Order: sequence, then C-alpha cells, then structure tokens
Amino acid sequence: MVQSKIDSPVLIRELREIAGLTEEEIDSYMSLLVRKSIAKKDHFLMAGDVSTAVAYVNKGCLRRYILDSHAKETILNFALEDYWIGDLESLITQKPTIYYVQALEESELLLLSRKNLFRANEELPKFKKFHDDKVQRNHYYALKRLSIAKSATPEEKYLLLMKEQPQLFQRIPLHYIASYLGIEPESLSRLRKRIEINPHNS
Amino acid sequence: MVQSKIDSPVLIRELREIAGLTEEEIDSYMSLLVRKSIAKKDHFLMAGDVSTAVAYVNKGCLRRYILDSHAKETILNFALEDYWIGDLESLITQKPTIYYVQALEESELLLLSRKNLFRANEELPKFKKFHDDKVQRNHYYALKRLSIAKSATPEEKYLLLMKEQPQLFQRIPLHYIASYLGIEPESLSRLRKRIEINPHNS
Repeated sequence: MVQSKIDSPVLIRELREIAGLTEEEIDSYMSLLVRKSIAKKDHFLMAGDVSTAVAYVNKGCLRRYILDSHAKETILNFALEDYWIGDLESLITQKPTIYYVQALEESELLLLSRKNLFRANEELPKFKKFHDDKVQRNHYYALKRLSIAKSATPEEKYLLLMKEQPQLFQRIPLHYIASYLGIEPESLSRLRKRIEINPHNS
Repeated sequence: MVQSKIDSPVLIRELREIAGLTEEEIDSYMSLLVRKSIAKKDHFLMAGDVSTAVAYVNKGCLRRYILDSHAKETILNFALEDYWIGDLESLITQKPTIYYVQALEESELLLLSRKNLFRANEELPKFKKFHDDKVQRNHYYALKRLSIAKSATPEEKYLLLMKEQPQLFQRIPLHYIASYLGIEPESLSRLRKRIEINPHNS
C-alpha cells in the first residue's frame, strides 16, 4: 500500500538544516516513515510490549507514564508536536518496555520501525550522526531532569514546565500536570493561584 | 613526565572482552589515561567549572551532588571502583557544569581528557563504538532512574540501592545515603530497623 506523501515541514527542516541531509536523502528517509493515526486515550505503547517503532509526533499530544505495584500512575513526560516518543531501549534490545504511552488528543504519529531505524543508520551516515547526537543530548537532558526530580520543589518544577512546554497548559487537563509534578490536583490549583497573585515572587 | 604503568585489570578486561580491543590497541588507549590521586573530601569537579576530563574510578568512592538555591545538597549518585564519573556534557560542550563530584575516600582516578577522548574515538573505532554504546546504556539507565526518582517510595529506593551497590553501606556514612534517598537520616535509621525486623515484608 502506497501512502500519500507525508506533510511534516518541521521534521523536514530539521533533517535539512540540522542533520544536513540532501533533498534526495530526505526523500529516502521520509519513505521509511509510516503514518499512524491514534485516537484520544488510545495507547501507542503498554508496559510488557516489545517496542516495534519509535514515533515522531506530527500532530497531537501524548503522555508517557509508569504504573507502580499499587497501580498508581506517575507521568514522566509529555510529547507535543516535533517530539519523538516511545522506548528506544525496548526497540533496540527487544526487551519488554516498562512504559505506557497514551494519546491525550487525537494524534498523528510518524513511525520509524526498528528495521528502518537500522537501515537509516546504515544508509544515511548523516542521519546516524544526527540520531546519535540526539540520543546524547537526550541523555544530558535526562540527567538534568533527574537532578530536578530529586531536588526541586513542586513549585520549581511547575515553573520549569511553564517555561519549557507552555502549550501544555492550554491543551491537557490539569490533573495530568499534577501527576507529572508529583502533587495532588488541589495542591496544583493552590500553587497556581499563589503564583498568579505574586508572579514576581516565583 | 612518564608515569609508571597503570594497574587496572578490570578496565583492561572490559576493553579486551567487551570493546574487543587488541593488546596493542589496549596499550594505546591506556597511554591516553593519566593517573590522579584525590584526597578524601576533595572535589574532582565543582559547579561552574568547565570539565577538562572524565574519570574512571580505579580505587575509591565518590559522590555526585547538586546544590539548590538554598545551598541544600542533593546526592545524585555514588561512583565506586569501575564507574566513570564527571560531566560528559560539560566536557563535550565546554559549558560550565552544574554538578559537584567529591571523593568520599582517598581515591585513584584515571583521567581521560577531552583531547584524548576525541583522539581515542578517532583512532580506535572499536573504542568509539564501546563508548557510544555506554552512553546509550547510561541513557536508558538515567530514564529508569528518573522513573524511580519520581515514583518510588524511599523504602523502594533504599532496597534498590542495597541491591545495586551493597558495598556502599559498608563504606560511606549513612547521612549520605539518606541524602541520596531524599529523606532525613533519622527516617533512614527507622526504615533500616523496620526492614531488619521484617525482611520478608520488603
């Protein structure tokens, strides 16, 4: 089945301007992606699954979370347009994932399968470098996120999220943001009121 | 100044058996490392420094921590023998680090400078692959640590540390472990007593 051409100007611009791919290489890379629509509340990944693809968010919004032994959810991050989401470790090692990835809006994903990731890395050395650099940057970012998770107060975490992903606050229910911050929804409401009243104290 | 040959059987075994380096390549890699002794309580890295080298712990024990705006310490991890420690991001980007790395015992580090890391990556492709794989694995591990930091209880974190780095409990003061777990030293003592009394409940 031949899919219609994928419309993804942001990804294409990145491949051109950051990865340095030629127009021909971009076409060849884009032909490795498969479009997938996912309904609101549907899961792209469930704990126990072995990942078959990583997903570029072309449109929509998803959350990644884990469930502890008491079935309590903890949200680890949100993915909006132009984020990649999935579990690269499970994709590479073919071990079951521990993560859930769920659409919070009707979303359009562009899937890069394991086979096609390996193919892109092999056939497009500039893509491989781009991908490796991204993994490395994500690693630095994960280490900083770990520092923040361990040391920052909920208020500091809230302000950082406002700075990094302000669109989230227009798009998703606040109880998800509370779960991300590790506080109760009522505490988040109080925190928001306090910051609105004294914005310069924050 | 010529340094005497570095005695590091564990690192050499890894380079031989995991990285697949030949004896000649191992010699050439080892010649890039510089031995550095560091006294107990001395810092290998301080926030604001631009990192000049990453360090392999040949002997000893160090901790990595951050200070928040109220000068409160949060310990992110401990490095024992056969761990690498430092800030690869600061080393690569030459931006100041946010981390402190301090020796908890008199330690012997083997330093790989920025120049020598680049040289090893260029001249020893097998080392580059070994290093890239390590960064990737560390990334997966950092993501799991992030999940744990956000969702696990102090007791769960304690049990995990006991499993992963049991030697720590013989080597370092408990208040450091409490800081790592994000609890007060008194809470850690109570937690330990409870687990000793009811080991099968944990």
